[in-house]
Amino acid sequence: MKVGVIGASGYAGIEATKVLARHPELSLELVTSDRWAGKTVESITSISGGAGRLPFEEMSRAIELAHDLDAVILATPAEVSLAIAPKLIESGLRVVDMSGAFRLADASLYPAFYGFEHSAAALLSSAIYGIPELFRESLRGATLIASGGCYATAAALALAPLARAGFIGDGSIVVDALSGTTGAGRSSKEELSFSEIDGNARAYRVLRHQHTPEIVQAVAHAGKNAPQLIFTPHLVPMRRGILATVYVPLQKGISAESVHAAYAHNYAYSPFVRVLSSPEEVEVGHVVGTHRCDLGFAIDTKNAMLVVVSALDNLLKGAASQAVQNLNLSLGLEETSGLCDLREHVPRESRQGLVELDRGQS
Amino acid sequence: MKVGVIGASGYAGIEATKVLARHPELSLELVTSDRWAGKTVESITSISGGAGRLPFEEMSRAIELAHDLDAVILATPAEVSLAIAPKLIESGLRVVDMSGAFRLADASLYPAFYGFEHSAAALLSSAIYGIPELFRESLRGATLIASGGCYATAAALALAPLARAGFIGDGSIVVDALSGTTGAGRSSKEELSFSEIDGNARAYRVLRHQHTPEIVQAVAHAGKNAPQLIFTPHLVPMRRGILATVYVPLQKGISAESVHAAYAHNYAYSPFVRVLSSPEEVEVGHVVGTHRCDLGFAIDTKNAMLVVVSALDNLLKGAASQAVQNLNLSLGLEETSGLCDLREHVPRESRQGLVELDRGQS
Amino acid sequence: MKVGVIGASGYAGIEATKVLARHPELSLELVTSDRWAGKTVESITSISGGAGRLPFEEMSRAIELAHDLDAVILATPAEVSLAIAPKLIESGLRVVDMSGAFRLADASLYPAFYGFEHSAAALLSSAIYGIPELFRESLRGATLIASGGCYATAAALALAPLARAGFIGDGSIVVDALSGTTGAGRSSKEELSFSEIDGNARAYRVLRHQHTPEIVQAVAHAGKNAPQLIFTPHLVPMRRGILATVYVPLQKGISAESVHAAYAHNYAYSPFVRVLSSPEEVEVGHVVGTHRCDLGFAIDTKNAMLVVVSALDNLLKGAASQAVQNLNLSLGLEETSGLCDLREHVPRESRQGLVELDRGQS
Amino acid sequence: MKVGVIGASGYAGIEATKVLARHPELSLELVTSDRWAGKTVESITSISGGAGRLPFEEMSRAIELAHDLDAVILATPAEVSLAIAPKLIESGLRVVDMSGAFRLADASLYPAFYGFEHSAAALLSSAIYGIPELFRESLRGATLIASGGCYATAAALALAPLARAGFIGDGSIVVDALSGTTGAGRSSKEELSFSEIDGNARAYRVLRHQHTPEIVQAVAHAGKNAPQLIFTPHLVPMRRGILATVYVPLQKGISAESVHAAYAHNYAYSPFVRVLSSPEEVEVGHVVGTHRCDLGFAIDTKNAMLVVVSALDNLLKGAASQAVQNLNLSLGLEETSGLCDLREHVPRESRQGLVELDRGQS
Repeated sequence: MKVGVIGASGYAGIEATKVLARHPELSLELVTSDRWAGKTVESITSISGGAGRLPFEEMSRAIELAHDLDAVILATPAEVSLAIAPKLIESGLRVVDMSGAFRLADASLYPAFYGFEHSAAALLSSAIYGIPELFRESLRGATLIASGGCYATAAALALAPLARAGFIGDGSIVVDALSGTTGAGRSSKEELSFSEIDGNARAYRVLRHQHTPEIVQAVAHAGKNAPQLIFTPHLVPMRRGILATVYVPLQKGISAESVHAAYAHNYAYSPFVRVLSSPEEVEVGHVVGTHRCDLGFAIDTKNAMLVVVSALDNLLKGAASQAVQNLNLSLGLEETSGLCDLREHVPRESRQGLVELDRGQS
Repeated sequence: MKVGVIGASGYAGIEATKVLARHPELSLELVTSDRWAGKTVESITSISGGAGRLPFEEMSRAIELAHDLDAVILATPAEVSLAIAPKLIESGLRVVDMSGAFRLADASLYPAFYGFEHSAAALLSSAIYGIPELFRESLRGATLIASGGCYATAAALALAPLARAGFIGDGSIVVDALSGTTGAGRSSKEELSFSEIDGNARAYRVLRHQHTPEIVQAVAHAGKNAPQLIFTPHLVPMRRGILATVYVPLQKGISAESVHAAYAHNYAYSPFVRVLSSPEEVEVGHVVGTHRCDLGFAIDTKNAMLVVVSALDNLLKGAASQAVQNLNLSLGLEETSGLCDLREHVPRESRQGLVELDRGQS
Repeated sequence: MKVGVIGASGYAGIEATKVLARHPELSLELVTSDRWAGKTVESITSISGGAGRLPFEEMSRAIELAHDLDAVILATPAEVSLAIAPKLIESGLRVVDMSGAFRLADASLYPAFYGFEHSAAALLSSAIYGIPELFRESLRGATLIASGGCYATAAALALAPLARAGFIGDGSIVVDALSGTTGAGRSSKEELSFSEIDGNARAYRVLRHQHTPEIVQAVAHAGKNAPQLIFTPHLVPMRRGILATVYVPLQKGISAESVHAAYAHNYAYSPFVRVLSSPEEVEVGHVVGTHRCDLGFAIDTKNAMLVVVSALDNLLKGAASQAVQNLNLSLGLEETSGLCDLREHVPRESRQGLVELDRGQS
Repeated sequence: MKVGVIGASGYAGIEATKVLARHPELSLELVTSDRWAGKTVESITSISGGAGRLPFEEMSRAIELAHDLDAVILATPAEVSLAIAPKLIESGLRVVDMSGAFRLADASLYPAFYGFEHSAAALLSSAIYGIPELFRESLRGATLIASGGCYATAAALALAPLARAGFIGDGSIVVDALSGTTGAGRSSKEELSFSEIDGNARAYRVLRHQHTPEIVQAVAHAGKNAPQLIFTPHLVPMRRGILATVYVPLQKGISAESVHAAYAHNYAYSPFVRVLSSPEEVEVGHVVGTHRCDLGFAIDTKNAMLVVVSALDNLLKGAASQAVQNLNLSLGLEETSGLCDLREHVPRESRQGLVELDRGQS
């Protein structure tokens, strides 16, 4: 099957390019980037072979050149994804979009959170939200997948199993998260210069970050109700990675054992989620460069509050690796195909079990 | 008046030494440090003049050499402070301790949070907790001051005015905070090496950090009740600074205006606390190297939650500058004496007003 | 005497503003910056008092508003300095320029190294090159001072005493230097973003950096001949500071003692240059935030090569502090006035001696 | 063939473990590490499959457990390598040592540069120095390989082709290099703590670093004479990577074209060395995580000096990747086997050509 990456020169786009260039079951046939137009994949990534010889094409030719592909990953800004996804779908391609253009089911949220009116609201209802560990079955064969955002994935992987199990009590969930600077994309903003970031830390988009409704929606979809949720993203002096600390008011009597069981049940057959034995063991440094999200938790029994720490690489599990998981599911492949290293983690028979499990749950 | 610094070679100790060496109304006469014993203050700090010529003395001679001083700042570990503070007080000195040895009124909390039985429990009741902006009047003339901790100061400055005003509603307050590595002191631990910290972020001492009861106590003292409170400290790749994001469930109907008024009322005459117009304006980079704590907030009206971001330099407002504020108050000096730069901020007549204001409040 | 800073919002400009705002003998009366026009010095620097109340003025009004000042520091790009310095001098002001606009005596070097034809070549011959420790006497009362550049100061302070003493042998001097990112100024270039700088190091402007002829000129002026010199600047992941490692072929028989004597002779009365006992003791972290340059050296006797390591803060001794030293000399003040902390280092009588010493030497 | 890694828990040891665990032609059968004794490779590296199930064994059992292997990589300190390599060789194993224990042919240099008397001087003459791109032929089938050091590899790859071509003139070569902190190994030294390294840069072991004689020996071996050489290593605030700037006095009339030809000739068939079109294109960030060394140069014609910038990942091309290249050659495999990604770079026929080329040269 033939695939492409549209917008390959962003930090997440080049990661997706690298994964697909080495994918054993997919053939990378198109990469577009105005920045690198005319250069080859090898000159940028040092990946050789057929994919290495592929030249970056101009963005304006993306639709035209994609028409005989089976699927593409969009690594474009939300406005661009919104403009081109409908055309690509019309041409019969499967589309995995890494932007937020199709993540929120409610079109009316777009002006406030994304700054534009949604011009393809009809597609929102058919788009499938793409966090495979939570919504695997619905992703198989999907035509348009809105791959989960970096913060949202870190938070939803911590929260959704608790919502499914009915463990979340009254009061507000707090998601307090730290991000590396690549989360802002390749940037020439002064505020993202080394001189301004090094030795500094700050919150941004307080109470108005676009991943807030995304997390709420994912948790609501996993459980029964939309939770009360406050999300604060912070920028700290590191390049890659997200660390989310999630504070969850618990129903009475929920023990550490039951929380552990809920996670174990959900992630038993998900090789890219690892539940560690304490929140202190979760470190950004352990997940950067991997396809994985690590989780760890502790319970404050007196206050009936659960503290979950969740970490992932914003460019991999928070973007490119997850997009490839989604693409694999869309195309009927093994979810972990091309995401080597961790691949043999889960024996095939286990994954069969996983299917059943998921079916029963969602 | 003659003063000294015991344990001057820690990161906070040397900052205290630098401030006192230039203090216009105090004469620095003793600095102790085994590490630098025999060297002069000038050789380490480049501060010249009389204080520069002062040699560092061995720790074992601290009590003996301190006996004719008026006051000392202890920059020693809690166990050492606990051992020597009683003797120094007995010799008639005023003591400002930067460790946690005398911060918790309840001696029974020490084994769990500090790892030792408190051997001078009687002193705990006479020790005054030292955050001048919150407890100024009780610090004037005090004999033993337990200077507020770095995280605790950042959190308490955000929370205490809300507690005083009766704004805090039901549910748990969450304090999620980031610290630079100097908060761990001079360290030769592998986990604090550049190779392990750079590009990394992690939570530590989740649900068991010793500043948790300290914050609870400070807020309880300012308001009427001990709050439910969860505190998670994180280590991020920066040298200095603390950024605390504080989530507060509000009573019904509390508006941004009333929150602003509560802060303005409390800090009108406190030159080292600055309330900014949004939480995004609070940056670690703006407070490092200053004696100041910056605050900014936003309200989630729907969820009745207040988000306050608070930042300070862990070695200055979180340690040395605050210790000198406390020392000044203990010795009857102007609170900001020797903490130049920001000094002229508050005209003298205003400070008179401050006294009245505070009396009415606490 | 009344002074101003033109272009105060650059990283060096704000440092110069901070020093002058607290200067005990100069009154800061004008700061210009389009970026901060209308804001006060206090709102940016937290410096209170009279200078704190000064508003930043628009750059277009700089000449007009400066006319009744005694002197200004120019913190403007070279092209801007070139345009406005002649007008300011004509108005009777003394001008200390922190850019390279007037540093090179040979106008013909400007197109290649600065990218423009020099439009005020006549002023080049009257401009005095401003590194006080090397050319102090010529700076007293000077009208136009081209304050030494950051790399050039680090290198020239290492080299000039050797040139004066006639120690430099045949072969090329190599200056290999590292700079923090603030050396590039406030920047919105992608290549200076945290994402690109963190974890990275690279050389830039190899064999074509504009400080190369500046160093050659300074060394030639101190000795008798223009040296053969290769200079390579590097960018490393730190905000502030320069570390220059300088490799000098020596004349036969020059010992470590004679090198030490040459430095001691030159810098005996220069409180802002410190000669340490080994090159390993010179650290960027020790000079950042100070007005100082630290030097340390070792000799490879077999190869007759001297290795000198030199470190300074690019924004202070490499820019703002040095500009104020120069300004003080221009206005007939004590060279170190307003550059506190290190001020008492040199008793007044010694400085008298310094004058004699310098006279004899240059 | 069965292989092992002795001392697998150092930063380079774990990289070697990861490469060998995925090596398509070698079976990793032994990893020793006291730190991780009892844990599995998978628990540390997330590598699954057979190698993932391998437990780390205690160091004391290394010799005993290695006896039926074909080869081992030693990731041990020089003293430990010195003690165990003779025994392993006696047991019939091939040994690739990543320490300096067998790098210097002259045993008399060890006390000064390594701090110990060499106890196996006889082995020094049979040990082959392991930089495959320079000494490939001699490494095929070798029993004891002293894999080149990180700084030495960066410098020798820049210098050896020039020496071979006879381009190096009179005067001292200067090697000025920057290293990330992992070059110092896992460390609990205060001087390597984040608090001391961040924002700092300094030279160390000036004129006495142990890689100085190693570079001299490698260049002498490639050319005819031992060069005059000065080497200064620096520590800068980054985790991984080396950037070496090498200053070479040239013979008269050597042009950029001839330098380029010399490099092209030597490295035409070496996929892990890349010669870029300018020294500014060489960036640590481009080589970290790769098996590659990047080179770029410029010539100062007036001074007849060549400036070469060389960059590599100290843990890969400067340690683990190079050790595996050496191991492959020792065992008769393709040099790049197991070092995927770049593997297809060089078509097989080219590598044949390489053999011929090398034979003619060395």
